[in-house]
Amino acid sequence: MAVSNIRYGAGVTKEDLQNMGAKNVCLMTDKNLSQLPPIQIVMDSLVKNGINFKVYDNVRVEPTDRSFMDAIEFAKKGAFDAYVAVGGGSTMDTCKAANLYASSPHSDFLDYVNAPIGKGKPVSVPLKPLIAGTGSETTGVAIFDYEHLKVKTGIASRAIKPTLGLVDPLHTLHMPDRVVANSGFDVLCHALESYTALPYHLRSPCPSNPISRPAYQGSNPISDIWAVHALRIVAKYLKRAVRNPDDLEARSNMHLASAFAGIGFGNAGVHLCHGMSYPISGLVKTYKAKDYNVDHPLVPHGLSVVLTSPAVFTFTAQMAPERHLETAEILGADTRTARISDAGPVLADTLRKFLFDLDVDDGLSAIGYCKSDIPALVKGTLPQERVTKLAPRPQSEEDLSALFEASMKLY
Amino acid sequence: MAVSNIRYGAGVTKEDLQNMGAKNVCLMTDKNLSQLPPIQIVMDSLVKNGINFKVYDNVRVEPTDRSFMDAIEFAKKGAFDAYVAVGGGSTMDTCKAANLYASSPHSDFLDYVNAPIGKGKPVSVPLKPLIAGTGSETTGVAIFDYEHLKVKTGIASRAIKPTLGLVDPLHTLHMPDRVVANSGFDVLCHALESYTALPYHLRSPCPSNPISRPAYQGSNPISDIWAVHALRIVAKYLKRAVRNPDDLEARSNMHLASAFAGIGFGNAGVHLCHGMSYPISGLVKTYKAKDYNVDHPLVPHGLSVVLTSPAVFTFTAQMAPERHLETAEILGADTRTARISDAGPVLADTLRKFLFDLDVDDGLSAIGYCKSDIPALVKGTLPQERVTKLAPRPQSEEDLSALFEASMKLY
Repeated sequence: MAVSNIRYGAGVTKEDLQNMGAKNVCLMTDKNLSQLPPIQIVMDSLVKNGINFKVYDNVRVEPTDRSFMDAIEFAKKGAFDAYVAVGGGSTMDTCKAANLYASSPHSDFLDYVNAPIGKGKPVSVPLKPLIAGTGSETTGVAIFDYEHLKVKTGIASRAIKPTLGLVDPLHTLHMPDRVVANSGFDVLCHALESYTALPYHLRSPCPSNPISRPAYQGSNPISDIWAVHALRIVAKYLKRAVRNPDDLEARSNMHLASAFAGIGFGNAGVHLCHGMSYPISGLVKTYKAKDYNVDHPLVPHGLSVVLTSPAVFTFTAQMAPERHLETAEILGADTRTARISDAGPVLADTLRKFLFDLDVDDGLSAIGYCKSDIPALVKGTLPQERVTKLAPRPQSEEDLSALFEASMKLY
Repeated sequence: MAVSNIRYGAGVTKEDLQNMGAKNVCLMTDKNLSQLPPIQIVMDSLVKNGINFKVYDNVRVEPTDRSFMDAIEFAKKGAFDAYVAVGGGSTMDTCKAANLYASSPHSDFLDYVNAPIGKGKPVSVPLKPLIAGTGSETTGVAIFDYEHLKVKTGIASRAIKPTLGLVDPLHTLHMPDRVVANSGFDVLCHALESYTALPYHLRSPCPSNPISRPAYQGSNPISDIWAVHALRIVAKYLKRAVRNPDDLEARSNMHLASAFAGIGFGNAGVHLCHGMSYPISGLVKTYKAKDYNVDHPLVPHGLSVVLTSPAVFTFTAQMAPERHLETAEILGADTRTARISDAGPVLADTLRKFLFDLDVDDGLSAIGYCKSDIPALVKGTLPQERVTKLAPRPQSEEDLSALFEASMKLY
């Protein structure tokens, strides 16, 4: 399996772009970040070195097909020969999609979108170099809200993986505490889900041609290493990183954990927390997350993922109890006297305490959902087969309803 | 940093080659392996699927510039559009070199050879796809004996890293016990050396252009994960893998450890054990290793590397005592009462016991060297700056003499 080319603690240089033969660069970011030092540093370097570039700062936090299309149009008009994405996952995913469709101008948007919503065609066109710093720099996945179906889906192909990922912890010093917390919860679930995902040799069907393998292949001996290591960092540093913006050690380690977990889940995949999170954020009514400066209702991705985690791992534990217990221990549970059959509840309680300590909203009800929304939430989860099929335990619609119901309140 | 694209437990398929657009494949192996099942399986698959290929089975175990040239000539004549290397490190390294020079036909052989012996030019030509299974599938390094200088040197560039690495544990069931042991010692030293190598941010000089960065960048947060994980596997499985050819669990895990350590040292680098090993194998007189069916005197690479390890880590410990003590503990030492200042001797004793348990020759004297050879061994080490400069502690010629002398006998 491949991981991105990662450089730690370094900014983009004119040489990186020149080595890629770049003469006309697309610099993507979002409105908030475009005012902050990280993007200034990149622009100054490009200007100083006389590299032509155009800035696209219209990235939507939690992108939609419409916001993807807008970026794709910009990319097609610009005829760029390289891309630099500075921001979080939303910017990176938007830039991956812009690069893909500008490199494949005659494709319909749905051609590369995951089945069953899109056609999920394999990518065979060559893409332009993409330098990404940072958020989803290690994966070949780009997620968006498909508005008229009101579901989140995405594009998943090794081909859209960034050429070079920059992991610069200084970028994280500008993140407000909820952004740090929610990003950390995403890392936590990336690690927990990829470590408990269906083992790669049990995934079916086995495509006859390796090019048809999904980007998400199931848990495997290599992704396991990244998942466990990222989880250890989350256990040690996430609370510190949230509580103290100046704790560079904690924020640096969480930034690395994000890249590490990304390498792991980028190959192994995620399952129910992510599959169920897409309707949770896609069907948002009026909830506006603290610390997110956006003009629309928003359930941040990390929050939408973590709220169901106690219910999800209680449900999946029976398939891999040792792994569930092991992760609970890494997260601080005293498992010396725990019975293997209690692995699920032990991990769930550990997660609830972890979330409570970090002032997380008390379940789906706290972000505006009630029992009558469950059918719609289930309906929005069903198309997420790409990930739900990677759950170690198959789930019926009734199972999904029960998981959403159990996630209405956490404490 | 990048790692190869690795597939675990799978053979090469016609689809892999067709996806790469291969119509004329070069299949490289060595004389011994060419008679064994792994190569038969690949050939049958190519024949069955009507893919044109030519076999080159003239790979030299411990390659030389001459044996590289011979393979390069074969590659140039064949005008291949893809390469498949089936064998150990020697086959893989030979295939990397053949692919490189056939793709850059007007280059002198020394153009890409490491400075100071060669010119160490960066590789800017596109190479053909190379599928490698297995031995050095994760690195961008190819090592050979430069005969008229009687030194080992190599070619190191991300550009020659295989396109796809196949890690198939079934291949290891055919390995005799000394081959398993020596390969394991190489893995052991890859892990120990990359974990104790100069940290990446202390490496100097810092090239102004990232393309000039050495393939070996010094220890870093990502390579550390691979080194420690590989070391744990070595501690748990190496003895079992050596002693029982049918222990598939042990041999599979050692095979994975080899890939894991390769990802780590392939980015971080190795230092003195490897730097000093090159003259040890290059200056071999009459020693012929048990279990190696070759027509020339041979000190297997893994043996040449491990024999100096007790002396080397005694010497380097003072620069990173915690890491030296940590690795000793992973290898089974009881470090509860050990003083940090004893980290070197503690690790050295642990290594000696490990080697003694595995019937390793008692030091350089047991493979034909005596005190009067030391000046030549030192002279052969000096050009290995690419790795010796990555040692955490700088070393004088006197230091190197002392290290060789201390390695004459182990027990």
